[in-house]
Amino acid sequence: MTATTPSGPWTLHPDRALPADPAVRPVAREIYRATRDLPVVAMHGHVPVEWFADDAPFPDPAQLLVVPDHYLVRMLASQGAGIEQLGVAPTADGAGPAAETDPRAIWRRFCAGWPLFRGTPTRFWLETELVEVFGVTQRPSAATADAIYDRVQEAIDDPAFRPRALLDRFRIEVISTTDPAWSTLEAHSRLAADGLGHRVLPTFRPDALLAVGDPGWRAALDRLGAAAGTDVESYPGYLEALRVQRARFAAAGARATDHGLIGAGTTPLTGTEAERVFAAALDGTVTAEDAAAFAGHMLFEMAAMSAEDGLVMQIHPGVLRDHDRALAAAFGPDRGYDIPVATEFTRALRPLLEAFGRHPRFRTILFTVDETTFSRELAPLAGVYPAVRLGAPWWFLDAPDAMRRFREAVTETAGFANTSGFVDDTRAFVSIPARHDLARRVDAGYLARLVAEHRLDLDEALDTAHDLAYRLPRLAYATA
Amino acid sequence: MTATTPSGPWTLHPDRALPADPAVRPVAREIYRATRDLPVVAMHGHVPVEWFADDAPFPDPAQLLVVPDHYLVRMLASQGAGIEQLGVAPTADGAGPAAETDPRAIWRRFCAGWPLFRGTPTRFWLETELVEVFGVTQRPSAATADAIYDRVQEAIDDPAFRPRALLDRFRIEVISTTDPAWSTLEAHSRLAADGLGHRVLPTFRPDALLAVGDPGWRAALDRLGAAAGTDVESYPGYLEALRVQRARFAAAGARATDHGLIGAGTTPLTGTEAERVFAAALDGTVTAEDAAAFAGHMLFEMAAMSAEDGLVMQIHPGVLRDHDRALAAAFGPDRGYDIPVATEFTRALRPLLEAFGRHPRFRTILFTVDETTFSRELAPLAGVYPAVRLGAPWWFLDAPDAMRRFREAVTETAGFANTSGFVDDTRAFVSIPARHDLARRVDAGYLARLVAEHRLDLDEALDTAHDLAYRLPRLAYATA
Amino acid sequence: MTATTPSGPWTLHPDRALPADPAVRPVAREIYRATRDLPVVAMHGHVPVEWFADDAPFPDPAQLLVVPDHYLVRMLASQGAGIEQLGVAPTADGAGPAAETDPRAIWRRFCAGWPLFRGTPTRFWLETELVEVFGVTQRPSAATADAIYDRVQEAIDDPAFRPRALLDRFRIEVISTTDPAWSTLEAHSRLAADGLGHRVLPTFRPDALLAVGDPGWRAALDRLGAAAGTDVESYPGYLEALRVQRARFAAAGARATDHGLIGAGTTPLTGTEAERVFAAALDGTVTAEDAAAFAGHMLFEMAAMSAEDGLVMQIHPGVLRDHDRALAAAFGPDRGYDIPVATEFTRALRPLLEAFGRHPRFRTILFTVDETTFSRELAPLAGVYPAVRLGAPWWFLDAPDAMRRFREAVTETAGFANTSGFVDDTRAFVSIPARHDLARRVDAGYLARLVAEHRLDLDEALDTAHDLAYRLPRLAYATA
Repeated sequence: MTATTPSGPWTLHPDRALPADPAVRPVAREIYRATRDLPVVAMHGHVPVEWFADDAPFPDPAQLLVVPDHYLVRMLASQGAGIEQLGVAPTADGAGPAAETDPRAIWRRFCAGWPLFRGTPTRFWLETELVEVFGVTQRPSAATADAIYDRVQEAIDDPAFRPRALLDRFRIEVISTTDPAWSTLEAHSRLAADGLGHRVLPTFRPDALLAVGDPGWRAALDRLGAAAGTDVESYPGYLEALRVQRARFAAAGARATDHGLIGAGTTPLTGTEAERVFAAALDGTVTAEDAAAFAGHMLFEMAAMSAEDGLVMQIHPGVLRDHDRALAAAFGPDRGYDIPVATEFTRALRPLLEAFGRHPRFRTILFTVDETTFSRELAPLAGVYPAVRLGAPWWFLDAPDAMRRFREAVTETAGFANTSGFVDDTRAFVSIPARHDLARRVDAGYLARLVAEHRLDLDEALDTAHDLAYRLPRLAYATA
Repeated sequence: MTATTPSGPWTLHPDRALPADPAVRPVAREIYRATRDLPVVAMHGHVPVEWFADDAPFPDPAQLLVVPDHYLVRMLASQGAGIEQLGVAPTADGAGPAAETDPRAIWRRFCAGWPLFRGTPTRFWLETELVEVFGVTQRPSAATADAIYDRVQEAIDDPAFRPRALLDRFRIEVISTTDPAWSTLEAHSRLAADGLGHRVLPTFRPDALLAVGDPGWRAALDRLGAAAGTDVESYPGYLEALRVQRARFAAAGARATDHGLIGAGTTPLTGTEAERVFAAALDGTVTAEDAAAFAGHMLFEMAAMSAEDGLVMQIHPGVLRDHDRALAAAFGPDRGYDIPVATEFTRALRPLLEAFGRHPRFRTILFTVDETTFSRELAPLAGVYPAVRLGAPWWFLDAPDAMRRFREAVTETAGFANTSGFVDDTRAFVSIPARHDLARRVDAGYLARLVAEHRLDLDEALDTAHDLAYRLPRLAYATA
Repeated sequence: MTATTPSGPWTLHPDRALPADPAVRPVAREIYRATRDLPVVAMHGHVPVEWFADDAPFPDPAQLLVVPDHYLVRMLASQGAGIEQLGVAPTADGAGPAAETDPRAIWRRFCAGWPLFRGTPTRFWLETELVEVFGVTQRPSAATADAIYDRVQEAIDDPAFRPRALLDRFRIEVISTTDPAWSTLEAHSRLAADGLGHRVLPTFRPDALLAVGDPGWRAALDRLGAAAGTDVESYPGYLEALRVQRARFAAAGARATDHGLIGAGTTPLTGTEAERVFAAALDGTVTAEDAAAFAGHMLFEMAAMSAEDGLVMQIHPGVLRDHDRALAAAFGPDRGYDIPVATEFTRALRPLLEAFGRHPRFRTILFTVDETTFSRELAPLAGVYPAVRLGAPWWFLDAPDAMRRFREAVTETAGFANTSGFVDDTRAFVSIPARHDLARRVDAGYLARLVAEHRLDLDEALDTAHDLAYRLPRLAYATA
């Protein structure tokens, strides 16, 4: 046992997150070594495109590492910190308390709370970032907070830490942003003008336009019409505007659409029914039931458009957003109070898969935060429908033990080739290399166990590790 | 491999239930050693308070170890023993067959069935009890039954085996009993008079009073009114009586309420609606639908009262009691035929958590026998709402592999500090030290793996093990 | 690490699928060695009875190993092969494309797709079959396809590879086929005449007769009437015909019935209601709702008949058959597009278990592809109702990691004696020894871990391994 003692300098053990078993670790080390330095393919994520387009320096350690990171904020909140104390600003309506504005105060709260992250992936990611990216040599604590703050601030003041420079440093071959379906992709145009158009790609996200019962729908629709330059006051016009914008995204290099919604229903409506619901939505009289049916219908329609234009359809269902509505009203959406619910895929996706599951130009990647569906529904679906790829374990499941459980649950039915390989999903840009590194370590550990149990030969494991880290993500998004 | 051979004397291996992996075991041993001798905090349990108040000797081995233990009875029944053969008595109505009255005959059946317990926690608990508490040196079997019986009988005839003496011997710092909401806490008063009032605490259990559709509700209500000394013929009077009794429990040292019910719904009714349903219940005309809605409403009301009086709210949902109704009619409730059902928490708890989830005086501890909710719902809830703690794996899950799965499923999202630490849940008094010992071993094994995988430093693991075994249970019930 | 290098000859490592942990593997090896050569009890399967009755040589490697194997076909289809390219023939109506008829072309596609099976049980089974049964010495690939084909063809041309000879070679003590409830068991009669009547047993499968809403029901009913020689134009006649056929099966050595259906509901209808639904079914006017209720009712009726005639009732619920209906229309049912759904057992089985769960002549074996029910519902049910045995992990779960998860999920509540021991479930006859071998290895690994963690003594583990491999399957089907 070679645990870092807390008195010595803070360093990263080269074998971290590899299996301890002495019959497995040497194999895992060999497999990991073969993938460690491969380029990063980051085809799904939420880093703001402006970071790359503007290439401005990051403001301070708190705004870079704490405030925008859901995982950090929710854990500190769970032990009693108000999220405003962590720098999360209330909405303009002013219902919430004022946010902490001193970045050093925010940073101190985070460092004092460091023990809360024991056993979490945040611990691994932050540790990797602080040590490897910023050269920190002390474990975070109340006592070390200021020194670490100064070290990180010093680093980000260096031009070598600007976003575009980090793209190189992080070996990111390609990265996708997530963009609203009504975006004119102005920032992506600037990137293209600077020769980065093939390295930073947009992703088409139409959620707000498909949720006809939501208060924000009408405004989103108007933005869509303005961007597409078409009349969206009718159902056919609305579909046409979506097509126009999908084409704009595809022309700008987009490879995928992204769909986050509560259910995975995909039952199409008749044209007449769809027109009726759309008209009711325009009138503001749509029922919750009709809105839900329309969402399922539009998921089917989006699949139909994907079968035409080849954009890969990413589906992320099963999260109840803004569980605490008072908090969301005070601070805005997506502040960490998003909670998963049980999700059904087998029946829900049947209409979509019967129509497009064997279509040669259609591809869908399925993500979930409901582990129960891995062996029961998702692996059997991905293991037979050629259009289906199984996405990497998502969000709460993007962690060492959960990633291992994912492989153990799906591989025996779906194999490796029906999975997407690793897909990170973060707005914490600096964590991206750490996330890919962790996934490569966990996959190496899983493959090494198969080798040590004589269920796989070493040459196969090495080849498969390369697939999971690099080739499969490229294939899944057809970027190869 | 150092398995006890069946020919040698029966002994306990010091490393039992620690991971076998040679890279993990030494670390696990070191962590376990640091928590092994900590006091026992037993804030949830079902040992009859009279055992401590009366401090009478236990009658015989069968009545002490077999008859009241669900786990033993259900396993022996599953292989064909009628539960009456295990000493379970039929109800007074006499529908069931007469119970075996010879304790030695019951004991022989248990010993002959010993192989059935292979791989179960009962095996671990009983083994620990028989060897460590009673000094037994032979593995149970038909051949050894009588000798073991005599040895156990001899021990319990010794005054050093009276319940109060065992409290000391077992290093139990504090233990909670479970008491009906209408209790006058007479036995607890006797304990207080003997200076044990801070060591044996009551817990407020109002289930029977919230189930307005159940046949026993009216009688329970009358008992509540009598205990509280208030008029319970109206909904406000009923609420007042609950408040009076909660105050009585709190004054007697209670730290918590306990709620066992089939669902976890917490949607409040309007006052008018609640009054209407209550009146219908008084009339005996309440519908099943209204009764279910009222149960959810009252869970919300209990939370509101907890936010006032500070009693920690324990919720244990998702078990269908008395699956075999004919057997329950013959032998009474809770005879082992209780079976879990799938449970939903995310939507069900939303009203309660939106109202009290960030309340500074409110705390709820959530338990489940549906493992699928660990990573999907409970860890995300506990990992963001400050009022929520995640209880230890409950009932069927209070076992080595299930406890390990619990930590693996929840830690990456909720960390350690959002869990309750170990909570036993038994009426088998003599098994309490063995249960805490097993939990400490399993947590040591889990933490040791994190250390061996370089995901946690050893000093952190030692600190966390102390938290899980001792500090967190005290904090969770605010007894510190 | 002793991985086979791809350059050397293809051999099977003696320790494959045993745990790698050096503290566990030697124990696992010892336990496995004690069960490796035990006879095979194969009480559930789908090998066509004609194979044994006719004892004809197998035609070619593709028809023997590829075309009839769901697992192979679905994996190759998932990566784009049309199933007709794998030799699956379209239905007579001719909607599907013509099937590949060249067995060597089919075989080449399979060999070229070999890397897809990495990490799947198919890899283990095929590897065992090719090396041990057929003496293949090269790993399958496009380059080695023809040589392997020739080797397998050579083997199956040898009379020693006829089905009856393989029964001996595979040490199959007894094997059950699955036969429609209207079968006259002619092939079984021929086997009996040849002295194999006690070695190849029929199983009564009435699914098509209980699904009164399905298009094929009427034809199935007519076949039933013809076989039983009774009038089936009334509900009592229908029940009588089922009874007559059950008796015919029992007389031919059948030990069990088999029930595959979407839900597990078992609520009986009144006689009047059942007659009404049956009459509507005869008229072709039955509603979907009534048909579903009738299916649950008939499951209850089948249990009642089992309590009379002693046939063990196997229940396999929770699979949505023919998910892609267009493909099923083109190629017929069961072509690999069967996908599991979440299944509920606790409430669904309550009527059946309240009526027969403690009946001395009734036995049911429950199977599932929904792992979430293992610890939540199935282990608690099997761990208390004497009539319930928990079947081996089924179908997609018949794989090393899934089998390990099964034991880990159920043993702590249900022990070993309440499980069925290993039950294969395949029409791939040549894979049967490999399937039993894999299960014995996985169980040895699980038991060895318990021993290495001092949770079980070695003599107990050896005894339990024998139970799981041989004694329990015999007991579960009461063939002992």
